[in-house]
Amino acid sequence: MMNIESLQNRFFKIRSNRAFEFFVVGVILFSALVIGAKTYDIPEHVLTIIAWMDRAITVFFLIEITIRFIGEPNKKTFFKNPWNIFDTLIVIVSLIPIQDSEMALIGRLIRIFRVLRMVSIVPELRLLLNSLIKALPQLGYVILLMFIIFYIYAAIGASFFVNINEDLWGDIAIAMLTLFRVMTFEDWTDVMYETMAVYPLSWLYYLTFIFLTTFAFLNMVIGIVVNVMENEHAEEAKEKALAEGQLTIEDLSKQIDELKQMIKDKT
Amino acid sequence: MMNIESLQNRFFKIRSNRAFEFFVVGVILFSALVIGAKTYDIPEHVLTIIAWMDRAITVFFLIEITIRFIGEPNKKTFFKNPWNIFDTLIVIVSLIPIQDSEMALIGRLIRIFRVLRMVSIVPELRLLLNSLIKALPQLGYVILLMFIIFYIYAAIGASFFVNINEDLWGDIAIAMLTLFRVMTFEDWTDVMYETMAVYPLSWLYYLTFIFLTTFAFLNMVIGIVVNVMENEHAEEAKEKALAEGQLTIEDLSKQIDELKQMIKDKT
Amino acid sequence: MMNIESLQNRFFKIRSNRAFEFFVVGVILFSALVIGAKTYDIPEHVLTIIAWMDRAITVFFLIEITIRFIGEPNKKTFFKNPWNIFDTLIVIVSLIPIQDSEMALIGRLIRIFRVLRMVSIVPELRLLLNSLIKALPQLGYVILLMFIIFYIYAAIGASFFVNINEDLWGDIAIAMLTLFRVMTFEDWTDVMYETMAVYPLSWLYYLTFIFLTTFAFLNMVIGIVVNVMENEHAEEAKEKALAEGQLTIEDLSKQIDELKQMIKDKT
Amino acid sequence: MMNIESLQNRFFKIRSNRAFEFFVVGVILFSALVIGAKTYDIPEHVLTIIAWMDRAITVFFLIEITIRFIGEPNKKTFFKNPWNIFDTLIVIVSLIPIQDSEMALIGRLIRIFRVLRMVSIVPELRLLLNSLIKALPQLGYVILLMFIIFYIYAAIGASFFVNINEDLWGDIAIAMLTLFRVMTFEDWTDVMYETMAVYPLSWLYYLTFIFLTTFAFLNMVIGIVVNVMENEHAEEAKEKALAEGQLTIEDLSKQIDELKQMIKDKT
Repeated sequence: MMNIESLQNRFFKIRSNRAFEFFVVGVILFSALVIGAKTYDIPEHVLTIIAWMDRAITVFFLIEITIRFIGEPNKKTFFKNPWNIFDTLIVIVSLIPIQDSEMALIGRLIRIFRVLRMVSIVPELRLLLNSLIKALPQLGYVILLMFIIFYIYAAIGASFFVNINEDLWGDIAIAMLTLFRVMTFEDWTDVMYETMAVYPLSWLYYLTFIFLTTFAFLNMVIGIVVNVMENEHAEEAKEKALAEGQLTIEDLSKQIDELKQMIKDKT
Repeated sequence: MMNIESLQNRFFKIRSNRAFEFFVVGVILFSALVIGAKTYDIPEHVLTIIAWMDRAITVFFLIEITIRFIGEPNKKTFFKNPWNIFDTLIVIVSLIPIQDSEMALIGRLIRIFRVLRMVSIVPELRLLLNSLIKALPQLGYVILLMFIIFYIYAAIGASFFVNINEDLWGDIAIAMLTLFRVMTFEDWTDVMYETMAVYPLSWLYYLTFIFLTTFAFLNMVIGIVVNVMENEHAEEAKEKALAEGQLTIEDLSKQIDELKQMIKDKT
Repeated sequence: MMNIESLQNRFFKIRSNRAFEFFVVGVILFSALVIGAKTYDIPEHVLTIIAWMDRAITVFFLIEITIRFIGEPNKKTFFKNPWNIFDTLIVIVSLIPIQDSEMALIGRLIRIFRVLRMVSIVPELRLLLNSLIKALPQLGYVILLMFIIFYIYAAIGASFFVNINEDLWGDIAIAMLTLFRVMTFEDWTDVMYETMAVYPLSWLYYLTFIFLTTFAFLNMVIGIVVNVMENEHAEEAKEKALAEGQLTIEDLSKQIDELKQMIKDKT
Repeated sequence: MMNIESLQNRFFKIRSNRAFEFFVVGVILFSALVIGAKTYDIPEHVLTIIAWMDRAITVFFLIEITIRFIGEPNKKTFFKNPWNIFDTLIVIVSLIPIQDSEMALIGRLIRIFRVLRMVSIVPELRLLLNSLIKALPQLGYVILLMFIIFYIYAAIGASFFVNINEDLWGDIAIAMLTLFRVMTFEDWTDVMYETMAVYPLSWLYYLTFIFLTTFAFLNMVIGIVVNVMENEHAEEAKEKALAEGQLTIEDLSKQIDELKQMIKDKT
């Protein structure tokens, strides 16, 4: 029993060690470079070396995650952290030996996602990603409204323009992709001129769509700005209150009450 | 008399029921899916099923709007709400049987606009759309200024460039559409290079137009941002005043006045 | 003498009359429509009517500007207002009879600029345009910096890429236009791929240029936002101070001083 | 000894002279024009004149930098200013005689960078550029996150799409350039349609990429805005505190304490 506990303590120390952390970041960067290198035309023997490196990285990550797990004082909280689950999954899946070519692509994908482990290890990046994820639900209704706009316009487009260009307006899904293209202004006039040849007033369809989506997008951006600003203000106000804090109107009120008491006492 | 009133009460209860609301949202979503499905190539017998579903949805919406109307305690306020008018119109128009192909397209459009009923039922979306509509009038003069810029440039373009490319500068309406294209940067250099071949200085025309419209657009965006911020600040200030409220300078002043009175009394 | 003064008074009244203002706006709108109509293919006899309308509008504007001038109590201030000078110039130049075709285009331009008189008459538009013009000088140094960036990159581009594509990099002026195109992301990869065929590292040239100009542009936008916000805040603070104003810390201090005096008096 | 000191004083005066500064700015502008002129087709004898002007400018800059250096009271601080180092390097390098054509291009580059001396001389531009450079490190982690997103997507793209189009997805570096193109919306649908022909679901790859990078970019912009605003607010608060300053709650508290003392004394 004592033995296991001392092992946990030792591993906890390794885990919290800054040198160990930098080493892990280094291995992740190295694995990213290996992934990048594989996309170049490289001679056969280098490929063999890379394959060996790949296995070495996998083994290292397996050891690292084991150290992290054993080093965790409370085993239950380990799997409550979504980043730990993500790390473990990536490591376990990359252990599966892959032979046939179909699966090879998925194997590659897993190796690429290893780079995301960077985010799970560097705290500042984790903070940044969390703030991005946190901002999403607030914008939920704007995104829903935008989806409704897209859906209605796509339904109209797929109904009226399907005979003009099947590649752009074939069904509602294709039409939504075409509308996203129009929203990014990517050769949108080509799409418009084509339908204007049949329906001369169809420019109204595109212009109202562009106005609506631009307006909704602006609203979304402003929503984020206002929200971020407010949070900043609230934090500032808190800090200010803590920094000053010494004297408020309440304090003055107490002083005046003391005065009253003094006058009363004198009587 | 009693009978009708009890009916109204019962319908009012149904209307306010959350389960009923969710069911209506469900039917709207289902009708949206039916509209989407129609844009795919589907076998004849599925089409027949869809046609029956369409009728079922129409009937359901008719019943739903009737419940809403009967459930309304004050019949007059029902038609003062523009969303109710919109809902009723959509339902009534979709009742008209459509045979000839010309009208069939309009019938389709009506069915597509049913999806907008989502906005009239989900309060958060209604709020969002209202805020979008409310922001428009404030921007009225910026939009008017932008229209004047467009009109003047279109008049110049349609006067000078009409012989270069009739498709782009044929008349003032076409020229305005071309200028909107230039504003979105969509292949605007193709338009410019064409006119520069005849008028080598015409790049001035495009650059000044881009600068003016970008500047006016920025002004519009900033106008919205500032306005939203101010409203937020005003609300915050109100809430703050309510939350604190207990002790202000006025309260202190009263306390000091009491002190004065005490001292006077003593004399 | 008396006669002239009474005439001035009468004209001043006409000038300040809202009905007269609306009528002038109406004529300007009508002249805009006439300009627009001319860009369409119209039969000969309608053209004759339009030509007569054009003369009628010119005469009306001449009368209107005369009323404005005579109605002005102080003749000197009339020409201090740049909008009045602009109005007068437009009216005088459109009086010159134009025969030969070269000048006809300039005559057309003058007629188009009449629409701008809308801005000189509607106060809200004048305010808006003034605010746009006022914002420019503050941004002077950012625009200068941007020009330096453009000049340096254009000089590099015109030196290195001139043999690759003379139409895009022929001289420094053409190169600046090409760079503006790159800044608007208009088919910029076509420009890049062409030079990358000769100088494989030239993507660095484009990417650094895009980063620098985007960054400078952002800085410009933020500069305007911050400036507008500050002005708004300053105004708000003033209004607030006026609205509350009744009780400040200074007032409390005075009350306490009175207390002290009372205690002193008692001694 | 005395002699050298008086020389330094005299040069320090020249350096600080506004007329001298304007003259240097004038020479820089002239050298910029010379660089611009060289990109036009010019007759041989003008080229000879330009070559002589070039040498004259080089000599002038050499004299100017010498004046600056001798005029500097503390020689050590001269090279602590990065702008001085930049100036000196540009001047020294442009002294090297260049014969062979390879080096001629580098010689040209050096001459172009002389225009940047404008920034090192006009204080407002130096301030602006410093603020741009200062803003960069704060955004460090956002840029790192963006690079990780680019790297992962490029690795996926280079793995899956390499056989579809080698020019766009040949290796990870080319794939990153292609993704930057997609981010700027430059003919991105062409890239997408090509891969969708093989992998019909690859639109998911592009759409998620566009959403992620747009979101991260927005975050970056908002980060700058918030930061600039906060600095402005902090400065404003400071100024306000200095301007008012006279009476705070602390002052009131002291007054009340004096009151207490007075009452005590009376007893």
